[in-house]
Amino acid sequence: MKKGRILSGMRPTGAMHLGHLFGALENWVKLQNEYETFYMVADWHAMTTQYDDTSRIKDSIRDMVADWIACGIDPEKSCVFKQSEVAAHCELFLVFSMITPLGWLERCPTYKEMKNEIKNHDLNTFGFLGYPVLQAADILIYKAGFVPVGEDQLPHLEITREIARRFNHFYGKLFPEPKAILAEAPKLAGTDGRKMSKSYGNAITLADRGKILEKKIKRLVTDPARIHPSDKGHPEVCSVFQYWKAAAKEKATEIKMQCEKAKIGCVECKKALSEKMAEILDPIQEKREKISGADIDEILKKGGEKAKTVAEKTMAEVREAVKI
Amino acid sequence: MKKGRILSGMRPTGAMHLGHLFGALENWVKLQNEYETFYMVADWHAMTTQYDDTSRIKDSIRDMVADWIACGIDPEKSCVFKQSEVAAHCELFLVFSMITPLGWLERCPTYKEMKNEIKNHDLNTFGFLGYPVLQAADILIYKAGFVPVGEDQLPHLEITREIARRFNHFYGKLFPEPKAILAEAPKLAGTDGRKMSKSYGNAITLADRGKILEKKIKRLVTDPARIHPSDKGHPEVCSVFQYWKAAAKEKATEIKMQCEKAKIGCVECKKALSEKMAEILDPIQEKREKISGADIDEILKKGGEKAKTVAEKTMAEVREAVKI
Repeated sequence: MKKGRILSGMRPTGAMHLGHLFGALENWVKLQNEYETFYMVADWHAMTTQYDDTSRIKDSIRDMVADWIACGIDPEKSCVFKQSEVAAHCELFLVFSMITPLGWLERCPTYKEMKNEIKNHDLNTFGFLGYPVLQAADILIYKAGFVPVGEDQLPHLEITREIARRFNHFYGKLFPEPKAILAEAPKLAGTDGRKMSKSYGNAITLADRGKILEKKIKRLVTDPARIHPSDKGHPEVCSVFQYWKAAAKEKATEIKMQCEKAKIGCVECKKALSEKMAEILDPIQEKREKISGADIDEILKKGGEKAKTVAEKTMAEVREAVKI
Repeated sequence: MKKGRILSGMRPTGAMHLGHLFGALENWVKLQNEYETFYMVADWHAMTTQYDDTSRIKDSIRDMVADWIACGIDPEKSCVFKQSEVAAHCELFLVFSMITPLGWLERCPTYKEMKNEIKNHDLNTFGFLGYPVLQAADILIYKAGFVPVGEDQLPHLEITREIARRFNHFYGKLFPEPKAILAEAPKLAGTDGRKMSKSYGNAITLADRGKILEKKIKRLVTDPARIHPSDKGHPEVCSVFQYWKAAAKEKATEIKMQCEKAKIGCVECKKALSEKMAEILDPIQEKREKISGADIDEILKKGGEKAKTVAEKTMAEVREAVKI
């Protein structure tokens, strides 16, 4: 017996990196055994910020979904689909637009934040302001009761809940108010010390192996106060330790003790981490190589059909409710 | 050989009145012989302002479309359809959202105006701000090259043209920049002197006949300076004269002369107008009585299918263009 329905999604940013694996995909894989899971390629969302250059979206979708599957997302258990293939997302977006006060969107804390962060695109668009409305439609068109989110996404989910409430108030109860499944998202630093991100060029990708993987891990920033191996380390400020926590919890406890007592040096620690990462990535890479573009197309086709069936049923109920 | 494609639409406000007949429908009927015409029941638009009470939309749609047909809209010549049945409107609305600067919408002169006019609904919604974006999608999903509009709608059409330009700039030329067909819309006053409007309860409807029609016309406000039949009249300030201009141009010229020379009194003039109106409305009412709800459903079904085919073709080209 499944505990309920989940909707989660990612923008098609291309090949996945360790941040995605430990921050979301591992969790997604676990959740698909407990919940009815819908995992969405948020390709319309990609347009909110990349509207002036969409050339790479299609390739990015294939790369991303192939990585999802390689990491253990099972298309037999999870509905894997492209947002743009299900027109009902757009229809519900329009309906929700009508009942969403502008103030909810203008006051959304991530709105101004993102506008400040992303400098290379003009984000003063109607669509960018309406981002949380589209998210609400994405979630509620499947009547998902649960959404795995990071803490920073909570304000968006709150808008989804408010929109559901407002709709139910005007037109009768139709939508659940989805609950957050808060995931412990590790903050993995990239090879330059900043947050791991494809756009910073500092990511360790799921495809990295051998010498490249070792080299990238060697470049990770460690405790700056620890100059000699005999100095005691402070794991909490060391980005290598964050990797340990994300990749191997038990081993991390051991490493912590050893580091704090100067029983393990950074070089040795990084070497062990490289081995651990290779151990994790090897089977993913092996599986990834066997997945063809045609496989992905087939998975998205089947997933799209299932998603469409569910979404169109909801949309029929919405029409009934709003009397259109 | 048709001159091009036209999109026009009306919100489903229910039974039509003389303002609709002389302000739009007569023109629509004429245009369907010269252009390929798409006439849309703008039911999603009805939600922008009436989101908190949608109970009457369905009946209003049937009444309105029956009146369209009775006035001469020919479903064999014109594609008559419901906006909400063609999901591609919503998809294109979403795509256009992404590329439409907020400033274009906030600066739209009708935006603040309507917010001030309509007091009984809270219009501070995301959807109301995006009204012109949805209009752009309505028009451009059919690649309509022409839009019959009143002068007050020109700013909206300008936003449509700007959105078309911006889309073509980012993704390659796909959309025309639709031109306005400016219709000479007569300003018909209702029975209380204010602009004729269903919501004011001052309208002469297409269903009015006999005593009711006469009575309503008797209540029309005439030149206040003309107290006795022997006083010379000023037709330009007389709402009865506006009706003559709208309904019978040649006769209006005659009436004007007679009125200015005090050769016709207001009572006689109104009696003649009642007769003229009955002459115009009789055949419409006769036709209207023969149209059943089932006929309307059938017309909208066929129209919806045609509209869908055209709209989905455009949407496929949009996907190709934006590479999603």
